[in-house]
Amino acid sequence: MKKISFVELNDYIEKEIVIEGIVDNIRFLQYVIFIILRDITGKVQVTLEKTKETEKLCEIVSNLSCESTVKMKGILHTNEKVKLNGMEFIPTEIDITSYCLEKLPFNYKEKSSMLDTRLRYRFLDLRNEKNQFIFQIQTCLVNAFREFVIKNNFIEIHTPKIIPTASESGSSVFCLNYFDRKAYLAQSPQFYKQMALSSGFEKVFEIAPAFRAENSNSYRHTTEFTSFDIEFSYIDSYKDVMDFEEDLLIAGLTAVKENYGNQIKELFSVDITIPKKPFPRIKLETLYQELEKEYGFSMSIEEIGDMNSESEKLASEWIKKKYGHEFVFITDFSAKKRAFYHMRKNGVPQGYDLIWKGCEITTGAQREHRYPILKQQAEEKGLGEDVKFYLEFFKYGCPPHGGFAIGIDRITMLLLEIPSLKETMFLFRGPNRIEP
Amino acid sequence: MKKISFVELNDYIEKEIVIEGIVDNIRFLQYVIFIILRDITGKVQVTLEKTKETEKLCEIVSNLSCESTVKMKGILHTNEKVKLNGMEFIPTEIDITSYCLEKLPFNYKEKSSMLDTRLRYRFLDLRNEKNQFIFQIQTCLVNAFREFVIKNNFIEIHTPKIIPTASESGSSVFCLNYFDRKAYLAQSPQFYKQMALSSGFEKVFEIAPAFRAENSNSYRHTTEFTSFDIEFSYIDSYKDVMDFEEDLLIAGLTAVKENYGNQIKELFSVDITIPKKPFPRIKLETLYQELEKEYGFSMSIEEIGDMNSESEKLASEWIKKKYGHEFVFITDFSAKKRAFYHMRKNGVPQGYDLIWKGCEITTGAQREHRYPILKQQAEEKGLGEDVKFYLEFFKYGCPPHGGFAIGIDRITMLLLEIPSLKETMFLFRGPNRIEP
Repeated sequence: MKKISFVELNDYIEKEIVIEGIVDNIRFLQYVIFIILRDITGKVQVTLEKTKETEKLCEIVSNLSCESTVKMKGILHTNEKVKLNGMEFIPTEIDITSYCLEKLPFNYKEKSSMLDTRLRYRFLDLRNEKNQFIFQIQTCLVNAFREFVIKNNFIEIHTPKIIPTASESGSSVFCLNYFDRKAYLAQSPQFYKQMALSSGFEKVFEIAPAFRAENSNSYRHTTEFTSFDIEFSYIDSYKDVMDFEEDLLIAGLTAVKENYGNQIKELFSVDITIPKKPFPRIKLETLYQELEKEYGFSMSIEEIGDMNSESEKLASEWIKKKYGHEFVFITDFSAKKRAFYHMRKNGVPQGYDLIWKGCEITTGAQREHRYPILKQQAEEKGLGEDVKFYLEFFKYGCPPHGGFAIGIDRITMLLLEIPSLKETMFLFRGPNRIEP
Repeated sequence: MKKISFVELNDYIEKEIVIEGIVDNIRFLQYVIFIILRDITGKVQVTLEKTKETEKLCEIVSNLSCESTVKMKGILHTNEKVKLNGMEFIPTEIDITSYCLEKLPFNYKEKSSMLDTRLRYRFLDLRNEKNQFIFQIQTCLVNAFREFVIKNNFIEIHTPKIIPTASESGSSVFCLNYFDRKAYLAQSPQFYKQMALSSGFEKVFEIAPAFRAENSNSYRHTTEFTSFDIEFSYIDSYKDVMDFEEDLLIAGLTAVKENYGNQIKELFSVDITIPKKPFPRIKLETLYQELEKEYGFSMSIEEIGDMNSESEKLASEWIKKKYGHEFVFITDFSAKKRAFYHMRKNGVPQGYDLIWKGCEITTGAQREHRYPILKQQAEEKGLGEDVKFYLEFFKYGCPPHGGFAIGIDRITMLLLEIPSLKETMFLFRGPNRIEP
């Protein structure tokens, strides 16, 4: 790892060094050639005066174009006339390491290009400084989450994505040919992270792709996303799950604010707020009443007992106004609208949705860990053969437990207030988008 | 996270506490009932004397069986007569939180059961203390790798597993129905991690599943494994890649040895050796000569230019003998046997295999980043349409780069000297194994 990052160039003033980077700009003037090089940390100006001694170098760069990559030996000088960091690099050797061979199909430096073009050429779109920054921030956020759970003795698991049955619900699963039989892609690691707990693993996490064959094209849906999954044993109720999620989110947001707060403000005009504990918690029924009072909003009959995207938006608005908080836990959904594996108490699912900035980021719950009740709840939902292998995990004893999952593409979208997760995924996948 | 871990019970002597765990053993004697509870950190003895006062408690546990889970309130006393840590828990309240409802199909405490039975009931097999330990060690190893790359400013990416074409080679790819077209499961993130570098990401890593539709049943093959992928820019040669991999492995093994060295020695009879830098490096041709001299070994004609499992074993044996080293880099493979995207110099692929304890753990290389040469090398291998989307990444300039991948199931197997990765995967997947 010998490459000098441009952000560290200050340490090399008046020294002979080798630099490498991408040609961000090149200007051929009468007596001088200016090349701006960039790497992921910054930029530097290369100044090549046209003299007898530099004839060969000028020849080398004569057909150099933007986006090509170069390696140069030379000396870095301070020069207060240079606008870019007050320094310039005077090369003595130049090696063009790759050429940009074609005209770019769009200008990636301007965000105004059509989203579809940008996704088609995502490898160019990601050259945009702001886009690269998204993934540096995401790396920081996810790593802070991970450090938090590892500090709490969670075990990392890698559950199979190829599964034998259509999993939680048959409707939106990808089917594949597995030798001489059919198999499916996991919609989530739900069943297997619970399996780990039935095996006595106590606390587990996984960061992995999850697959949904949903033919929907919203700003927050994709057929393949990255899920941060958490599951842990020996809880007393789903409130322990909410408490843990609060701590996890605070750890993640604090790390992001500390490391990137200023840049996020500058580039995305977003001020990261570290949420205060406890986050507001409200029953669905009460929320409905408040939203009706405040906004005249009412749910359609078929959606009662659940949330939809409009009620999520209004819930955030109302909570912000009433409690000055960005987050809200909504509890007491209808059993009809929740998965069979959520524990129920007097018929009420012991779980929650967590809403942030108008969008659900998590469904969490205490799980039903007692075989006879779990089996009954599965049957009530009409699930039989497909969950048989899963029910088996609970026949031989299993500690009480709960957990949740966070879609990391979605939480990055909300964190930076980017309109669509198509832009916070490295490569978006949707019903009409499978390339590149 | 209020549960008291059994390893921490020393802090609670003579205090009233609540404990939770799995019934590891229960003995009903004439005047007393002994229950051994376990959690993932240890065990504790519960002593329930049969008296008038405990009548109700005795009634509660009268049908308690091993593997059920319980929650108890009571006081923890020291008692030097108790073999298990010299302490016993005297309960005043007992709550059975789940029941083991059926006889276990095999004794998971004994490793002698048939592997196939253990895999069929993997959720019970993972109750084995040693098996649980494997995943704690793997968590530590992978996390140390990750900390090392994050410290070196690598960006974490999550590349799509659903891909538009059959990827690197058509032969061993799973095919799925993606709405109204065909799609495939990624065999590796190779193309997409390189895409990140062509976008200027500079250094990336990913930990994710990779899929191989290979109908092979060896100790080291699986249809779905977890790959730790690394790729970084601005290298001078594949030697930079080897150097980096050395540092990464040393960081990982050092963390494992520090945290689990003694337990690994005790449970697996393995002494972790921190390898010295540089690892031995040898050309394939030279290795062949040495193996012939030493063991009379020669490769079959169709395998010349490559390694096979026998030569890997002998290479390790020979390196151990000659250099006292567990690792060896083998270089200068035949271009015919290597992927088209490996850079070549005078026809020689600029890459390596890394062998550890008789098994290949990595193929690494400098990649060909220059579009015209890469295109030609793809065509020479007969690859056309399938890699067209990939070749596009290099048309617009791309820094020189290289990388490698480590299968984390495989490296865990070698680390602990476990005979098969079926035992180091959370849930093994093979041509005949897709359940549970």
